[in-house]
Amino acid sequence: MISLEQAREKVLDRAKPLAPEEVELLFSWRRVLAADIYAGHNVPPVDNSAMDGYAVRSVDLKDAGPDTPVRLKVVGEVAAGSAYTAVLGAGEAVSIMTGSPIPKGADAIVPVEYTNQAENRVSLYLRPHPGDHIRQAGEDLKQGNLILQKGQTIAAAQLGILASLGISRVKVVKRPRIAILATGSELQALGASAQENHIYNSNSYTLTAQALDAGGEPLNLGIAADDIAELEQILAKTQDCQILITSGGVSMGKYDLMQEVLKGLGMELVFWKVAIKPGKPILFGRWDEKLVFGLPGNPVASMVTFEEFIRPTIYKMLGKKQILPDYIEAISTEDIKKKLGRKHLLRVSLTLKEGRFYATTTGQQGSGMLSSMSGADGLMIIPEDSAGINAGEKVTVQLLNKSVVGTR
Amino acid sequence: MISLEQAREKVLDRAKPLAPEEVELLFSWRRVLAADIYAGHNVPPVDNSAMDGYAVRSVDLKDAGPDTPVRLKVVGEVAAGSAYTAVLGAGEAVSIMTGSPIPKGADAIVPVEYTNQAENRVSLYLRPHPGDHIRQAGEDLKQGNLILQKGQTIAAAQLGILASLGISRVKVVKRPRIAILATGSELQALGASAQENHIYNSNSYTLTAQALDAGGEPLNLGIAADDIAELEQILAKTQDCQILITSGGVSMGKYDLMQEVLKGLGMELVFWKVAIKPGKPILFGRWDEKLVFGLPGNPVASMVTFEEFIRPTIYKMLGKKQILPDYIEAISTEDIKKKLGRKHLLRVSLTLKEGRFYATTTGQQGSGMLSSMSGADGLMIIPEDSAGINAGEKVTVQLLNKSVVGTR
Repeated sequence: MISLEQAREKVLDRAKPLAPEEVELLFSWRRVLAADIYAGHNVPPVDNSAMDGYAVRSVDLKDAGPDTPVRLKVVGEVAAGSAYTAVLGAGEAVSIMTGSPIPKGADAIVPVEYTNQAENRVSLYLRPHPGDHIRQAGEDLKQGNLILQKGQTIAAAQLGILASLGISRVKVVKRPRIAILATGSELQALGASAQENHIYNSNSYTLTAQALDAGGEPLNLGIAADDIAELEQILAKTQDCQILITSGGVSMGKYDLMQEVLKGLGMELVFWKVAIKPGKPILFGRWDEKLVFGLPGNPVASMVTFEEFIRPTIYKMLGKKQILPDYIEAISTEDIKKKLGRKHLLRVSLTLKEGRFYATTTGQQGSGMLSSMSGADGLMIIPEDSAGINAGEKVTVQLLNKSVVGTR
Repeated sequence: MISLEQAREKVLDRAKPLAPEEVELLFSWRRVLAADIYAGHNVPPVDNSAMDGYAVRSVDLKDAGPDTPVRLKVVGEVAAGSAYTAVLGAGEAVSIMTGSPIPKGADAIVPVEYTNQAENRVSLYLRPHPGDHIRQAGEDLKQGNLILQKGQTIAAAQLGILASLGISRVKVVKRPRIAILATGSELQALGASAQENHIYNSNSYTLTAQALDAGGEPLNLGIAADDIAELEQILAKTQDCQILITSGGVSMGKYDLMQEVLKGLGMELVFWKVAIKPGKPILFGRWDEKLVFGLPGNPVASMVTFEEFIRPTIYKMLGKKQILPDYIEAISTEDIKKKLGRKHLLRVSLTLKEGRFYATTTGQQGSGMLSSMSGADGLMIIPEDSAGINAGEKVTVQLLNKSVVGTR
């Protein structure tokens, strides 16, 4: 059986970045930039005031102080959106608002709190240094500089940066379309009353949420029974998709038809079975340009194999900079025994105490135990050749999608 | 001036949890549960097989082993979605698929890998223990137990749990409607070519993304000039909102009209100015049932005050369990000087080395510097009475909305 790392390499080798598309700025939120962004102009565009106050020549105020105000003549007033176009002369001041351009000749701003205006004269009680309270042109973003990089995800601050550059349409990477099919004659759809010997389909929901969360565009194909003709018919609907995920039907039983069906449709099998627990029976192949993941039907195995194989695939298709999960070092709070041969991925919660992360398994670890996934911050990784670990030993923990670890 | 903590308490005292609404299961993703969820039935509903193989009476196989197979009579086959209804007798086995109900009389499953069937006889090369590979009814979710709690956010695993309980419609807390208005005659909208003495409106975009991210429903009111009649007219459109955010117009200048306008419309002012940097001129009040936040116009001050005051407000309205941000201890990598009087919130990136977080400021900290926000993992907090810190000193860092800290 191949290892997790070998299998993931085979998957990622076959995942190609998708084409760009242009969207309205607001719709670029949480998308991935498809091109580097350079500043087309300075931000701020011109030297401007950081405070409400008076633009002055600092040389005029070299004797000013709390008890020794200096009086200047107010020769103009600059409201937001306008400018004082003359050159400030000796003994002159201009009343100015935050964000307004600095008049020529002025080299400092005295905040309004340190002034007192009467008619067209202002008394200033502060000796400013040249440059005080002046925001320089290009101080935040300099014209011509690389500001945001291809592969970056656009969060609130990046959205604001794009807006401040006047960019109203953004090139982002297309989202992979991801078909999701739950298989198994024991599955029933929500809404109907419970049938005997059936269980509700939950994997379609977890996989849809995981696909959305990773930045994909899910296409829910519902439930198919263990029936070749039915499976083939449904799978024919996936032509526009870059990824096909099935859950169930990949083990060794008589009704595990997925491999046969997919091969019959023309899928080239790349691997079947990986030395991990949960998730061993996962199959992966390529069907035309589509990447096909046959996930085990157990709810936790389905979620975990999505995180190990499909999230990195989506990230690669999106052109993200970081494709693989984050790993941290933690200390196990428990003794854990395992058989040799497979890499175990145990759901754990993390706590941070005195600079160390401590990992504790979240309840029973059976691959049907969805409840254990709900409280998990990460997956504790116990290697293939390990027979287990003792409480207090160091372990590696894979973080599950950006949870803030150890801080609650 | 009141402190951040005093101000936040005044805000949160006035924020009330919103009413519930019922949504389709899939649309409950990332929403907050409005009621506790109890298991209406066991998951799994009945004892069932964890493997493809044979249901047996373990007592029949007490002599079975790799070299000493025991042969049993195959009296039935249970496909997914069906059941074997007779009682398993001595010397009998039933072929069974993963997920299928365990026949009465059987107490273990032998996986298919350890068997060899010919006609209606199967040789079994393994001695099972009672209970082997049997998933017990209610093993994951026990009927009657509290499964998910009011105030929890529904992520992929929770969605799967709800589905496995057959819940197709979920009571979630209504999302607060949040009106967002950028003010200032110097602002121009995206799309038009750059006007002299103007800057592009970026705060509407960052605030919209922050509101969405926190779980609110933004209503973008665009830009208003510094004009009382125009402001009043636009603010009249916010009747259906629970929160009104304005940016700009709250400082001390002549054109800082927000306070006057809002009071004129009937807002009760709760506070104006908080001892923080950036963000000092923030104003907060109540206008009928609406909470009103007048944020400073500087892009970083606007983002930071959102995080300090508005995100917790939204979380409280949503009934979330954790309302306040997460804080961690870190070590400053730099000397930082400050004036006494205000609490400074510095944008920092975090790295984790040998169990310690190290905090480094992300470039210049001017309140116009949106670029410094884009790389920030958190806000380093330097208290009011501190004149600064030295490199190597411990500091508190507020995490910015669930970034995975220190792991890249």
